[in-house]
Amino acid sequence: MDKIDFNDQYFMKQALQQAKEAMQKDEVPVGAVVVSEGTIITKAHNLTETLNDVTAHAEMLAITSAAEQLGGKYLNNCTLYVTLEPCSMCAGALNWAQIGRIVFGAPDEKRGFKRLSPSLLHPKTEVTHGVLADECQQIVKQFFATKR
Amino acid sequence: MDKIDFNDQYFMKQALQQAKEAMQKDEVPVGAVVVSEGTIITKAHNLTETLNDVTAHAEMLAITSAAEQLGGKYLNNCTLYVTLEPCSMCAGALNWAQIGRIVFGAPDEKRGFKRLSPSLLHPKTEVTHGVLADECQQIVKQFFATKR
Repeated sequence: MDKIDFNDQYFMKQALQQAKEAMQKDEVPVGAVVVSEGTIITKAHNLTETLNDVTAHAEMLAITSAAEQLGGKYLNNCTLYVTLEPCSMCAGALNWAQIGRIVFGAPDEKRGFKRLSPSLLHPKTEVTHGVLADECQQIVKQFFATKR
Repeated sequence: MDKIDFNDQYFMKQALQQAKEAMQKDEVPVGAVVVSEGTIITKAHNLTETLNDVTAHAEMLAITSAAEQLGGKYLNNCTLYVTLEPCSMCAGALNWAQIGRIVFGAPDEKRGFKRLSPSLLHPKTEVTHGVLADECQQIVKQFFATKR
């Protein structure tokens, strides 16, 4: 846990709100927001079941939407806040997008990119983790508890 | 190069045709087709510039479209033919899709998933490489030669 400030907590709360929206749709509750110059430019949540598409993770939808908002496909000046550690697919996408910074909440020991290779990300991307980690983890646990 | 048969060459030619379509749109020329029970169910090519979206690789578009065609998001009984070795983002997506088999043409020494970690793929996914590798490599070289 490093470099956490009030803003990080504020934006992670917005990402958590997105995770809650996913939960209401019976989706694995992961949410994301993209911030540029202190402003949220896009919000997204996991829609893999709704869209019948394994690529529809919160981060992927957020990257695509942020690029559309900004009119350019590189997100060097953006921060992605996401409730759960990105998987290798999302890490690869964030690499292509050259995202400036990633802030994630809870670790994903099973599918998180860090387990496979931290070098999946762009070398210039800063990573902060552990922001509101308990809340971010709790909502995922709660979701899977209902599935057993 | 292993397990190459006439069918693999036939389907890779279709993927190459997609790469040529990408080239005509001034996109990095990578093409893909998804085959289920001996039939092509979807064709796609790289559209990252056209869609202003780093996630719009041929493989990603093919996975999304194949799931739509089949009405289910898992592609266990499908083979993806792609002209270039998938990157880590695409390998991650193919993992989530549990694709049965991947056949790729040319290696991608710089961005290919194998350099980072072969374990990016699902453990049950079979991989064949080197099918029409020269043609698949050539079209990419030709594209970048026009950019210098």
